[in-house]
Amino acid sequence: MWVRNAWYVAAWTHELGAGQVVARSIINEPLALYRTQDGTPVVFEDRCCHRFAPLSMGRVEQDDLRCMYHGLKFAPDGRCVEIPGQKLIPHSACVRRFPALERGSWLWVWMGEPAQADPALVPPSIALDDPGYCLKAGQLDYAADYQLIDDNLLDLSHLSYAHEKTLGLGAPQWADERPRIIGLERGVRVQRWLQNQVRGYLRNGTFDMWSTYDFLVPGIFLLRTAWYPVGTAERLQLKPPADPPLFLRCDEQAVTPTTARTSRYFYATGARSNDITPPQVDKMFAVVEAAFREDKAIIEAQQLVLDRDPQRRMLPTSFDAGPTQFRRILEGLVAREMAPAPPVAAQAE
Amino acid sequence: MWVRNAWYVAAWTHELGAGQVVARSIINEPLALYRTQDGTPVVFEDRCCHRFAPLSMGRVEQDDLRCMYHGLKFAPDGRCVEIPGQKLIPHSACVRRFPALERGSWLWVWMGEPAQADPALVPPSIALDDPGYCLKAGQLDYAADYQLIDDNLLDLSHLSYAHEKTLGLGAPQWADERPRIIGLERGVRVQRWLQNQVRGYLRNGTFDMWSTYDFLVPGIFLLRTAWYPVGTAERLQLKPPADPPLFLRCDEQAVTPTTARTSRYFYATGARSNDITPPQVDKMFAVVEAAFREDKAIIEAQQLVLDRDPQRRMLPTSFDAGPTQFRRILEGLVAREMAPAPPVAAQAE
Amino acid sequence: MWVRNAWYVAAWTHELGAGQVVARSIINEPLALYRTQDGTPVVFEDRCCHRFAPLSMGRVEQDDLRCMYHGLKFAPDGRCVEIPGQKLIPHSACVRRFPALERGSWLWVWMGEPAQADPALVPPSIALDDPGYCLKAGQLDYAADYQLIDDNLLDLSHLSYAHEKTLGLGAPQWADERPRIIGLERGVRVQRWLQNQVRGYLRNGTFDMWSTYDFLVPGIFLLRTAWYPVGTAERLQLKPPADPPLFLRCDEQAVTPTTARTSRYFYATGARSNDITPPQVDKMFAVVEAAFREDKAIIEAQQLVLDRDPQRRMLPTSFDAGPTQFRRILEGLVAREMAPAPPVAAQAE
Repeated sequence: MWVRNAWYVAAWTHELGAGQVVARSIINEPLALYRTQDGTPVVFEDRCCHRFAPLSMGRVEQDDLRCMYHGLKFAPDGRCVEIPGQKLIPHSACVRRFPALERGSWLWVWMGEPAQADPALVPPSIALDDPGYCLKAGQLDYAADYQLIDDNLLDLSHLSYAHEKTLGLGAPQWADERPRIIGLERGVRVQRWLQNQVRGYLRNGTFDMWSTYDFLVPGIFLLRTAWYPVGTAERLQLKPPADPPLFLRCDEQAVTPTTARTSRYFYATGARSNDITPPQVDKMFAVVEAAFREDKAIIEAQQLVLDRDPQRRMLPTSFDAGPTQFRRILEGLVAREMAPAPPVAAQAE
Repeated sequence: MWVRNAWYVAAWTHELGAGQVVARSIINEPLALYRTQDGTPVVFEDRCCHRFAPLSMGRVEQDDLRCMYHGLKFAPDGRCVEIPGQKLIPHSACVRRFPALERGSWLWVWMGEPAQADPALVPPSIALDDPGYCLKAGQLDYAADYQLIDDNLLDLSHLSYAHEKTLGLGAPQWADERPRIIGLERGVRVQRWLQNQVRGYLRNGTFDMWSTYDFLVPGIFLLRTAWYPVGTAERLQLKPPADPPLFLRCDEQAVTPTTARTSRYFYATGARSNDITPPQVDKMFAVVEAAFREDKAIIEAQQLVLDRDPQRRMLPTSFDAGPTQFRRILEGLVAREMAPAPPVAAQAE
Repeated sequence: MWVRNAWYVAAWTHELGAGQVVARSIINEPLALYRTQDGTPVVFEDRCCHRFAPLSMGRVEQDDLRCMYHGLKFAPDGRCVEIPGQKLIPHSACVRRFPALERGSWLWVWMGEPAQADPALVPPSIALDDPGYCLKAGQLDYAADYQLIDDNLLDLSHLSYAHEKTLGLGAPQWADERPRIIGLERGVRVQRWLQNQVRGYLRNGTFDMWSTYDFLVPGIFLLRTAWYPVGTAERLQLKPPADPPLFLRCDEQAVTPTTARTSRYFYATGARSNDITPPQVDKMFAVVEAAFREDKAIIEAQQLVLDRDPQRRMLPTSFDAGPTQFRRILEGLVAREMAPAPPVAAQAE
């Protein structure tokens, strides 16, 4: 199940150099990415219209992309502008172009109706080179449907078990207490206090931690973890804090379905520049990557079990509020995309 | 084609240690195996009822097994006894449990109706630590339907060709003479004399050898090879011998279908303790494993040929009496399992 | 789409030694190849009629082939002539035999009606040991439908782009000018002049080159490249030359569909013995193999793109005349093979 009218993360911006052509797949659509001379990203379907050679094996020539099988050349709008040895270029000689833009440090592609590609729908994220923050970035490929990764991120109770020795270290609260979940237009907000937490590897002492994240269509996870003195949660009666925290951790992640059973997971972790040193970010990042390997192992195994008997119903529990609420949002968007266009009203005579 | 109401070998008993969870597959059902504190084997379907993570990635806690994705815990009877952070445990929260027991050195699992899991149906086999015998054990995975391995064991004529340099060395009789085949309730018994055999690697001299094996549902092969002085077969007019043999070789094997196109083959080979030394068993075992590699090569190739044209009919020959008779037994058992339950007789008024 | 009534290249003749059994696949039919004592090639379907073990795992015994599972033996005409331990050999005990012969240095197999296996239909090719030529041979496996390789060879315009640094070096004419295409009974002839060509690695200087090849069913490519003094093409008004060339390069290639999505590509390259030294042939051959790796990369990628959306129509261009004309010939032959046999005319009374 895929929303088409959404911005998907195709790459970290630094992955697409000048003169390069990069092959990607999003919602099972193979894409060829390149930049024009001024750096603007161009995203084509990865198939020459002539004999279907992949354009990602092509060559950038100024602002254009040339297929390197028989030499057809395409302009950034997808029109064929050259067929060697042939004067007439038929009108149908073109490849599909997808709207694309860069925002934060991600290269985003709109997979649906180009007319609806509203840049305002791009979720906010912190650029890796933002001087206010110190972040480290990575990525990981999954052999699993992106929805299982979304589910995982929408229910952090698994930190107590799947990550009991990494992210969930000594924090049974993740599983034992349920967070507050707030509906957003294209996602959900998940919030909770974790009281009396020890995180010796960053700061000595014990803290109350305010964890809040937005999870946005199609799978953008923007987590802030704010540390406060012990007692703050109780004093606020578990309401959201307004004061600036002692420490602010940032985690930015994007889940991109590449095919029905594969996904790419982009992530950055870090904190405010004043809170942390690069070696500390390295340490945090190592814990994060260890945890992601734990997720990958269990989610890929879960996918195999699911595929053996796709009709079987899962047992609902109180863990599932976040995943369920988000899935309804996705289903609503997909249903709207599938709906027949409304009839044009008859003009008054 | 699988009989469900049968005991299948899941493992050598030494493969399942205390505190361990082991993943297995039998007749295409993924299973999670563990032991309670007193050592009793427990076999569950390998799927948590919540989000379908494999229980084989779980953790043994006393007598229970905990799923390590979100923490649900299951008792040895399959009931869920804990959902972290949730008081009510719904009745439907359980996983399927399969009857299991240990007998000889094999861990057996009953894949059908638990009510019919009669321990008396477990085929007899010699334990690896039986002081009366000196045995060596191994196992092998096949990319083939278990029935092709059953067929192979039910027609030893192939020893003369497939194993002409290993097990069948210098014995064209395997192919040139047909054995006596006796029907059993859940299998067949196959017997023959091989006269004037030279087996220099164990004993110098020439012998008459009485070969008899039971082949039992689903694929249990229990072979005894008894050596007698030359002339014994003729004196007995090829009837079964009653006298104790000079040497008694034992081969115990079990074929377990893991999926429709994969199987696991468990085997032990040896002789009475008085007949043999451990180095001689090692030598026998090396020959056996060489022969099994020959079988594996030809059977896996045969499977590929079969799958190209599953409708094509094989040519019947007089070799096929054993395989044919056993396949009828399997088909009969499967048909009985598939049959609708008989209507309950109306009570006499 | 496969023509059955055609000679396919199964192997270089030197690949099938005396006493050897070699497994091949042609148009998705697995084959077992061996030689009788006088060297005659015999080609069987690769499946024993008894239990479907592959005959390519068998043993050559004089003129016969024995299956090494249970020992059935087959004569060169495919009849079973021995079943160990069984006197009666049923009439149905036989395997399919395919007509086969050696011509040039290729071993050819006829995949259709044996009665129509006319040796006159074998395309001509130069033997590797022909003293008039100096050739070097190789082969390559493709994960692609053979028709994509045929298309590639039938439209050499791709030399300018796919091979711009190897075969097409400095020759935009391949893409910028269209060749003359002449229909043949079972193929097409493609001819063109390339004027003012520099081929420094073989001869210093500049030449007019006459390129002509026959491309014959199912995928036999016989190319001659004849070098003439600059000005020859113009003097002949681009008509075919009659004079002997300064240099004559020969390329002989055969594309064999092994399955629907795999192919084997056999090739030899060289020139007349007087034109070239063996080290020069080695150099030519290295360029050819580099170019074939380029083809393989783009064609295998093209296959993957095609398979994602098999209904999608390619954009016709003026490049495609050769591929289109040849595909019509193939389609015509296949249609004729599929047609019901004509009714036998009623005899005049």
